[in-house]
Amino acid sequence: MPVPVLEDIRDNLLNYQEKGLSVMEMSHRSHEFLDIKEQAIADLKTLMDIPDNYKVMFIQGGATLQFAMIPWNLMKNGKAVYIETGNWSKKALVEARKYGEVIVGASSADRNYAYVPDCSDLDIPKDADFVYICQNETINGVTWPKLPNTKGHVLVSDQSSMFLSEPCNVSDFGLIYAGVQKNVGPAGMVVVIMREDLIRENIDPKMPVYLNYATHASTNSGYNTPNCWSIYCCGLTVRYLLENGGLKAARQRNVEKAAILYDFLDESSLFFGKVDPEYRSLMNVPFSTGNAELDAEVVKESTAAGFLNLKGHPSVGCLRASLYNAMPMEGVKALVEFLKAFELKYRHS
Amino acid sequence: MPVPVLEDIRDNLLNYQEKGLSVMEMSHRSHEFLDIKEQAIADLKTLMDIPDNYKVMFIQGGATLQFAMIPWNLMKNGKAVYIETGNWSKKALVEARKYGEVIVGASSADRNYAYVPDCSDLDIPKDADFVYICQNETINGVTWPKLPNTKGHVLVSDQSSMFLSEPCNVSDFGLIYAGVQKNVGPAGMVVVIMREDLIRENIDPKMPVYLNYATHASTNSGYNTPNCWSIYCCGLTVRYLLENGGLKAARQRNVEKAAILYDFLDESSLFFGKVDPEYRSLMNVPFSTGNAELDAEVVKESTAAGFLNLKGHPSVGCLRASLYNAMPMEGVKALVEFLKAFELKYRHS
Repeated sequence: MPVPVLEDIRDNLLNYQEKGLSVMEMSHRSHEFLDIKEQAIADLKTLMDIPDNYKVMFIQGGATLQFAMIPWNLMKNGKAVYIETGNWSKKALVEARKYGEVIVGASSADRNYAYVPDCSDLDIPKDADFVYICQNETINGVTWPKLPNTKGHVLVSDQSSMFLSEPCNVSDFGLIYAGVQKNVGPAGMVVVIMREDLIRENIDPKMPVYLNYATHASTNSGYNTPNCWSIYCCGLTVRYLLENGGLKAARQRNVEKAAILYDFLDESSLFFGKVDPEYRSLMNVPFSTGNAELDAEVVKESTAAGFLNLKGHPSVGCLRASLYNAMPMEGVKALVEFLKAFELKYRHS
Repeated sequence: MPVPVLEDIRDNLLNYQEKGLSVMEMSHRSHEFLDIKEQAIADLKTLMDIPDNYKVMFIQGGATLQFAMIPWNLMKNGKAVYIETGNWSKKALVEARKYGEVIVGASSADRNYAYVPDCSDLDIPKDADFVYICQNETINGVTWPKLPNTKGHVLVSDQSSMFLSEPCNVSDFGLIYAGVQKNVGPAGMVVVIMREDLIRENIDPKMPVYLNYATHASTNSGYNTPNCWSIYCCGLTVRYLLENGGLKAARQRNVEKAAILYDFLDESSLFFGKVDPEYRSLMNVPFSTGNAELDAEVVKESTAAGFLNLKGHPSVGCLRASLYNAMPMEGVKALVEFLKAFELKYRHS
């Protein structure tokens, strides 16, 4: 999170705007909190230029709960196409099988998710309810340079690890969702941006009321007590982005930051990136020396030098750097300096 | 939340224990956060004297999601007994009907939930999976002076609005749960304390992985990113309670606070409590003048005088004061002084 946002939170922690209590203690039905929530939604609509026929919702349970809610709510015909590009899209499609037929439209599992498969001419059944993608695979470090051709079908996107990192044309999607904990605010909340005509009631007698999008849409995320603190903090981050050039400027900063690390990896004779250049994420950079023991040594020395954990996800096992919005340019430069020094030391040992 | 806890949170907000980042920014898999989570669980086990055969879990989605998870996970024989004592137990039993047969064992709906029905000799089918109660009805202000006689069946309790307000003999229950936002920490998390032998897998092919208690129990609430911030803040409140006499002292403080308000209501010739004395909650006090317009005037004047909203829940419509752990004795005294002055003014007008 941006430091000025954290400072703002700290300064208002015991006594929010002289109202005599902390945001953490406010009732979710109080005027004070309703103002905070309305402002957060309004600012997000401005920042992302969200069309009027979309609902913004704040839902608990993480992406994991969305993996179930999406197919259960959207599978009217019981059929959807999932594109498998890494760990998170795979988890999503496994969960979706509980609610209907899942067609894997394309997969990059053959090369350990180092690229995004060609999705310009997918074989999509006419009655498929939606096409699902993970737009940035956190663990595998791949992103979509171009959205799939859905041939008129609804597109659903998991933007968790790239949310608010660059401009987004919301009307390309039927549903966008993102866990807020990477770029926006404290964990425990997902933002869902959903086209209103896709929201429906009375889907299944067994569906918990909490899992129906209509529950949240019809109450403006107030059916039960939401994660008020996360809504408040995310609202401040959104406001900060608005006041600092919006999503175009965010993208520009992220492109510049990522280039520093990718340029180094391309020049290095020790380290190399794990993803085909065309599909490289601006947010998550998996890389390696090609030697597991040496990778482990990099993790050890970098931790001792004060860098955040460079250890890749257990399922991939290489190194990984994350360059979310809040990572400053200086942080990337320092990381590259560390890697250069490591490489030099290694060459001379 | 206790002021010293809020001050501690504020002072560590940007730089938790000199570790260079905010708890809001920590990975839920980092050593720093795992230490926070382990300590919170260990301290809660000490505070509540939780036996070793119980699991403590942190789950998102509020009581609303528990209303579905409990029957879906626990109804092995498809049958449960619910005791209806107010709005929350009623909501719970309506949701439970999606997952099996719900027998309303007793109800106080006949007198608008002003009491807890006699549950010393309930008619419980032998194959009922559990008996469900709401131990403190937030909206209706009733609590259980004595737990129901379940005749050997598993007892499930919603302790949301009384959690950590008094001692609790955990082994009386198969499952206790509580939304943390009343007495413990920021909203967006439920604490579930569940007897291990009740946790089971492979319940229903349609059950989302997030809704199976086994998912959370087997990963120590780390299957996906939990509400880390709430875990941190709740842990600090638990530690504060431990250092201030534990739950016996908390109960003593709450008894003394509630007595000030109830004594006033019993003496007043204008205001009266809505609940039969035997079943009065220490946390939530619904009261009234018996005149809706006059009640509205009390709300208006009390708000102007700086008191938190005294307006009762829309479904009940009277006045309601909440005396959670964090409400100081001075706060209750000031409220009674205000009500006395209102009564005096009314008598002379």
